[in-house]
Amino acid sequence: MESLNIAVLGGTGSEGSGLAFRWAAAGHRVTIGSRDAERAAVAAAELSALGSGRISGAGNREAAAACDVAVLTVPYAAQRATAQDVAAQLAGKILIDVTVPLVPPKVSLVQLPPEGSAVAALQALLGEGVRVVSAFQNISAHHLKDLVYQIDCDVLVCADDADAAEVAIGLARDAGLRGFYAGPLANSVVAEALTSVLIAINRRYKVPASGIRLTGLPEG
Amino acid sequence: MESLNIAVLGGTGSEGSGLAFRWAAAGHRVTIGSRDAERAAVAAAELSALGSGRISGAGNREAAAACDVAVLTVPYAAQRATAQDVAAQLAGKILIDVTVPLVPPKVSLVQLPPEGSAVAALQALLGEGVRVVSAFQNISAHHLKDLVYQIDCDVLVCADDADAAEVAIGLARDAGLRGFYAGPLANSVVAEALTSVLIAINRRYKVPASGIRLTGLPEG
Repeated sequence: MESLNIAVLGGTGSEGSGLAFRWAAAGHRVTIGSRDAERAAVAAAELSALGSGRISGAGNREAAAACDVAVLTVPYAAQRATAQDVAAQLAGKILIDVTVPLVPPKVSLVQLPPEGSAVAALQALLGEGVRVVSAFQNISAHHLKDLVYQIDCDVLVCADDADAAEVAIGLARDAGLRGFYAGPLANSVVAEALTSVLIAINRRYKVPASGIRLTGLPEG
Repeated sequence: MESLNIAVLGGTGSEGSGLAFRWAAAGHRVTIGSRDAERAAVAAAELSALGSGRISGAGNREAAAACDVAVLTVPYAAQRATAQDVAAQLAGKILIDVTVPLVPPKVSLVQLPPEGSAVAALQALLGEGVRVVSAFQNISAHHLKDLVYQIDCDVLVCADDADAAEVAIGLARDAGLRGFYAGPLANSVVAEALTSVLIAINRRYKVPASGIRLTGLPEG
């Protein structure tokens, strides 16, 4: 797809920096956002040194203001505050929420918020001015920075905005993954809860990173 | 596994009769249960005629009283009433709940009950005297009566009782499927909601029966 200006908010974490790395390697202009612009700059320099292509660092607001598409990869406890902090900068833009509503310490137990889906609650908080999409919750960060590694997990993409869903599906492809439209934003409960199920499976079967593949679909 | 006496409650429906067919073919003694014992007997005779091995029909209570393991395959609207009706007959036994909390007409939209998981709510209703397991929600009924057909979908098995989960995993194997322990009963929200996601995927990609395979696990 066309080169996008992507802000990965909370991109100093393992999931965010891994996705940033793959998108920069695919030719997108990527900015790591963080509450702390200096930490973001350090993380961006480290990723650039790994050979991803150029990645910048900035404060979350600055990154959000400059982007075409924002990606939220903060821990669940910081999801709402981070999004609210950049809401004005995201007006009219796509926000891909990667947040998994884990409640430590029991991270292998599904504990969804009272609203059901954490991302649907986020859309309600931000209002219709931000085009919220849910995706990438089930991708283990472990191998994202190894571009040759074929990650054996598909991406469920949920959105009420079909065009915004297509952008996320394209970004999955650019990260070397298969993304599929999985229904409206409310359907994101599956992706949000599945991470706890995969953690339970990892523990039970002593594997590092279980995942899912969709079946019954035409090839390609 | 050893031959079990299985009651498939609501087994006149397509999912229940398909599972009954596969289990009978694997050597289990299967009784189709229904509110209407005569309809159950007709369905059982039809399945037997298809060459499954002998299947009996009975009223739900009679079937539940005689079984080692009960499997609940009624529509969501009938889940609680059916289970309560046979609660005394299920004391100390395993009840595998296959119920998907679909809310017609929007069956491709996840609409979980206020309690979160429908099966966790069922366990709360029945109390600890019944060993409730969640499984088989994502298996399309379409090919269950074709024993040669390799169904391309795994079974997520959730239970608070690890031994009961192993029985369900064994019954998945006997139905020609791979079952995996996916965590406590609360984790069943994934399997319960995934059916709506798969329906959304079927519609979007124009396929008859999408499914999921778990990845990252050792073979066999």
